[in-house]
Amino acid sequence: MSEFSILPGLKDPAALKNLTSEELEILSGEIREYIIETVNKNGGHMASNLGVVELTIALHRSFNSPFDKIVWDVGHQCYTHKLLTGRYREFKTLRQTGGMSGFPKREESVHDIMDTGHASTSVSAALGVLVGEHLSNSKSRAIAVIGDGSLTGGQALEALNYAGHLRKNLIIILNDNNMSIGTNVGAMSSYMSRLTSTEYYLHMRNFIDRAVSIIPFFGKSILKSIYRLKRGAKGIIFKENLFTDLGFKYIGPINGHNIERMEKVFETVKDLREPVVIHVQTKKGKGLTVAEDDPSGFHGVSPVPEKKEKDSSASDNIKLTDAYGIALVEAAEKDKAIVAITAAMTKGTGLHEFSIKYPDRFFDVGITEPHAVTYSAGLAITGKKPFVSIYSTFMQRAVDQVIHDIAIPSLPVTIVMDRAGLVPGDGETHQGLYDISLFKNVPGMTFLSPVTLSEMKYAIDLARETKGPFMIRYSKEQCFPEVDSLKQPFVTGRGVFLRENHDAKEKILIISLGSLLSEAEKCADLLIEREIYADIYNMRYIAPVDIDYLFEIVGNYNLTVFVEDGVKTGGLGEQLAAKMFENDKHFHFRYFGTPDKFLGQATRKELIVQCGLDGESLMKRIIEIKRSYRFKEVVKQVRNDSWR
Amino acid sequence: MSEFSILPGLKDPAALKNLTSEELEILSGEIREYIIETVNKNGGHMASNLGVVELTIALHRSFNSPFDKIVWDVGHQCYTHKLLTGRYREFKTLRQTGGMSGFPKREESVHDIMDTGHASTSVSAALGVLVGEHLSNSKSRAIAVIGDGSLTGGQALEALNYAGHLRKNLIIILNDNNMSIGTNVGAMSSYMSRLTSTEYYLHMRNFIDRAVSIIPFFGKSILKSIYRLKRGAKGIIFKENLFTDLGFKYIGPINGHNIERMEKVFETVKDLREPVVIHVQTKKGKGLTVAEDDPSGFHGVSPVPEKKEKDSSASDNIKLTDAYGIALVEAAEKDKAIVAITAAMTKGTGLHEFSIKYPDRFFDVGITEPHAVTYSAGLAITGKKPFVSIYSTFMQRAVDQVIHDIAIPSLPVTIVMDRAGLVPGDGETHQGLYDISLFKNVPGMTFLSPVTLSEMKYAIDLARETKGPFMIRYSKEQCFPEVDSLKQPFVTGRGVFLRENHDAKEKILIISLGSLLSEAEKCADLLIEREIYADIYNMRYIAPVDIDYLFEIVGNYNLTVFVEDGVKTGGLGEQLAAKMFENDKHFHFRYFGTPDKFLGQATRKELIVQCGLDGESLMKRIIEIKRSYRFKEVVKQVRNDSWR
Repeated sequence: MSEFSILPGLKDPAALKNLTSEELEILSGEIREYIIETVNKNGGHMASNLGVVELTIALHRSFNSPFDKIVWDVGHQCYTHKLLTGRYREFKTLRQTGGMSGFPKREESVHDIMDTGHASTSVSAALGVLVGEHLSNSKSRAIAVIGDGSLTGGQALEALNYAGHLRKNLIIILNDNNMSIGTNVGAMSSYMSRLTSTEYYLHMRNFIDRAVSIIPFFGKSILKSIYRLKRGAKGIIFKENLFTDLGFKYIGPINGHNIERMEKVFETVKDLREPVVIHVQTKKGKGLTVAEDDPSGFHGVSPVPEKKEKDSSASDNIKLTDAYGIALVEAAEKDKAIVAITAAMTKGTGLHEFSIKYPDRFFDVGITEPHAVTYSAGLAITGKKPFVSIYSTFMQRAVDQVIHDIAIPSLPVTIVMDRAGLVPGDGETHQGLYDISLFKNVPGMTFLSPVTLSEMKYAIDLARETKGPFMIRYSKEQCFPEVDSLKQPFVTGRGVFLRENHDAKEKILIISLGSLLSEAEKCADLLIEREIYADIYNMRYIAPVDIDYLFEIVGNYNLTVFVEDGVKTGGLGEQLAAKMFENDKHFHFRYFGTPDKFLGQATRKELIVQCGLDGESLMKRIIEIKRSYRFKEVVKQVRNDSWR
Repeated sequence: MSEFSILPGLKDPAALKNLTSEELEILSGEIREYIIETVNKNGGHMASNLGVVELTIALHRSFNSPFDKIVWDVGHQCYTHKLLTGRYREFKTLRQTGGMSGFPKREESVHDIMDTGHASTSVSAALGVLVGEHLSNSKSRAIAVIGDGSLTGGQALEALNYAGHLRKNLIIILNDNNMSIGTNVGAMSSYMSRLTSTEYYLHMRNFIDRAVSIIPFFGKSILKSIYRLKRGAKGIIFKENLFTDLGFKYIGPINGHNIERMEKVFETVKDLREPVVIHVQTKKGKGLTVAEDDPSGFHGVSPVPEKKEKDSSASDNIKLTDAYGIALVEAAEKDKAIVAITAAMTKGTGLHEFSIKYPDRFFDVGITEPHAVTYSAGLAITGKKPFVSIYSTFMQRAVDQVIHDIAIPSLPVTIVMDRAGLVPGDGETHQGLYDISLFKNVPGMTFLSPVTLSEMKYAIDLARETKGPFMIRYSKEQCFPEVDSLKQPFVTGRGVFLRENHDAKEKILIISLGSLLSEAEKCADLLIEREIYADIYNMRYIAPVDIDYLFEIVGNYNLTVFVEDGVKTGGLGEQLAAKMFENDKHFHFRYFGTPDKFLGQATRKELIVQCGLDGESLMKRIIEIKRSYRFKEVVKQVRNDSWR
């Protein structure tokens, strides 16, 4: 990187203002090169970041960050912003443990206004910041940069409606790359392509070009004079459209790779007294041909995969995501009532094959989790069996819809949560740690946690036979190997033993919920090295739990350790402990989960170790418990206690 | 009611089709009379139901329910629908325990498509039903009836966008009464009044009137021919607007009190091959002058209040809602950073006075809970101290925003949940029973449950001094009397004794969370009659809990009973039990809350009794526990046990 001439010297965005247009071009090239190199190494968001290099430069030249507040929607396009705000060196550590986040982080820089990761929040947040600054008599501006995909999220539309009402000078940059994370969905999308393809488009674009570039120093006043004209004349640039209907000025579309043109438009809107939408067209993956051609494939890029830890058969080696895709296609063949719904995550949730094979029974509703759930409730009313695939963290968006539209009327909708548990790379906002806590107690819920392809098939079969609300959760991990014990049919509320040795003396049981089963297995192996034998039980069910059966099992052991891939406080282990307590079952039961705080970016393996949930930590924790007075007491008590 | 001539005889909506226009007028009058009489007696939604009498008649004459599916958004306007679908007799039991619900209920009738109560879901649900029916080759139609207020909710906009994309013949009736629950908020609202006030409006209205009413039998084909005209001509009726931008046909505005006119429009759109919005203008409270003049005051009407159970001083006698309003105004006087936000519930959340006194610091953002929370996060970033008032049940809409936009960046936003716990009259969808379960474990959360005006003031003072996420919850009840013990300052994580008698022999403690404190008190009084003395502790804190302090307290008793105004499973009592279990604290601790199911409509008192949480039930439960073997064991153990 030593060959970079401009980028390494930029410590502050203000320095950008002194660069010539030739230097800006060089800078853009350097930024692209650095992003491509780093993302290939560390993983991260490639296409979205390559698309906004010029837009970010233009924003930081026109506005004075951090006095002016730039809020990035989702935040997965903030790499250039980070490089221009003093984080050139740190960028090498992108997405690494303890390194720079791939998303805006208030802790990292005063230039990062919000911690983000989920879509469609930027307009609400920027508007709040703007109103707050105005209340304090500050003249800070607020700019929300939002993609066309995020704009389909209800919260963004709520905020647009409210911003139109408040009539503050909120500046919204609509980054239109004709593509949300997958293909953009919805009428808004075709509406936007209409906005750009009409005759008016060429007409207006020429007009803006001339107005703002031919007479550079007067561009601003020329545009201002246009505002003062009557509606008819204004219509040339400020056409009546969806945004103007909501009370915004609208300018665009503008070429998002022409810095000079964008800057001139930004200058023009700086001191408006009303909200404005600037429609900027960018190309995702710009500058990297493979990414330009397949921006969806280059949305989230993984680094070169790590060395496999052990050989496993082909079928074991698939991801749970793929197992779900395979199992759902198989179920859909025999059950015509099955329909699949996703919120802009067709590939991410393993539904690609389903979408090809059953296009009429497949619905990508865009980034609209609340709508996705209630839409599925509607489908269920007609006798369909909807399977709604949404990442665990994004299901936090649709808690009310699960309660109000599925559970209260007890409709047979299955919510399938991918990326449940510890999630690598993306940090706090993408962890799937809360779904167990949020959904396990919804009345009537059946909630499963399969770990192999066989279990996935059972789970889907159960889901399509169950008349009420249903949930399935699994991690981003590989399937657990297809051992015989895990092929046993599901029995309501019960799990299954992965290892069981009736003659073992120590009487230790590890109960595992979800993908931590492999850590439970490692723990048991490490214990054997120390001549301690532990049985392993795969929980399978989060709700309902056959509690008497569980008491029976746990009652056979001197120590039971429960391990779940989710928060400890509010988790299933806690609930089981309370039930034991309430029923005067004085078992020696300990429950482990992730700690009571937000977990930053790291690999999944590192996160597991941080939480003390890896095989070795579990082994040490069990040895420690065994050493305790309590353990010895219990061993004695199990033999004598009349209360049991 | 014997004087009604038509209404009582209508057993099925199909019968409506045989009525003459004179009979329809009589019918409308009878319906209004019956609604007014019943709501005055039972409480319920007055204005919204009086507004849609003719609209509902027209819908049921034009469409064939239940073959055609009519989905009512929110559902608080479904009384006429219920009267026309065979529930004339049941209507007398409106909102009574075991009686007819004030909202659509699938259990009640095949004509009720969805169980509703929350806003902005109808478009998603109706679209799902329509697509499901089409997949089954049914020709059922789907009609969503949505108010202008609900339309500002993000989910409705998500669904509009998706419906525009799918291009099925979804029929949306936009019931524009220029008023959501309070005053309508947002650009959409002023946009709609523009739609109706332009010259075009009169022009078009005349045009429709002539087209559909002069030649009744050809109205349909005339309108159809208009569809076939080119854009220019279509523009007369089907103007380009926000709805057409999203891919809908748009017809309107139409007088929502003219049955004939509406029917003719409905006929016209029945067999379109694309989605359509029919903009109908209605007058909330139509036919009842006091309600027409003050539709917000007549939104939710309470029945004649029950006889007071006991005298109480003026200050004790205010509702917690009012206590909050008073306390926040007081705090705002000394702390200029305080701002208040509500989602269309200014009066309902006690903020009326604040809104008058501090208009610049008050924001009603409309029915947009997700936006409300993130907007407040933005305000907090600028140093403001936002207090966001939202009913407990509606906060289920903004779980992700609390986690993602407040808790992760640890911003000082206070969410104030009114209507927490058991809520009278409205049934399953309005119970505030899940907030403790959903929010108590959000990392960094402080979560309080004040029961008097003094405690409310302490809670607000703490909130404005705390640097992270903060929540306050309280019921729709009166304040608990201002006794001295409850005036003690708050200590982090600790509650306070309402009664404490160090010499009591029985050593029984009742811990109460929230408004059930008065039931705890009654229970204790009833126990005294039986010569059993119980101490009472008001929990105050849901999070954090000073667990060691709590252990210390509970350790002094032979029996502790924990009572919370929320679900037992997933509640605070359960969590405390788990912590005791985990820490080998073998206390005799029992926890009570609401059961693991959805609770239908009843008075709050009846609900409390149903859940066994009233003073008498609590007394009986405690006596029962005292009789148990376990109690005697514990009494013995407390004296001897070395483990404590």
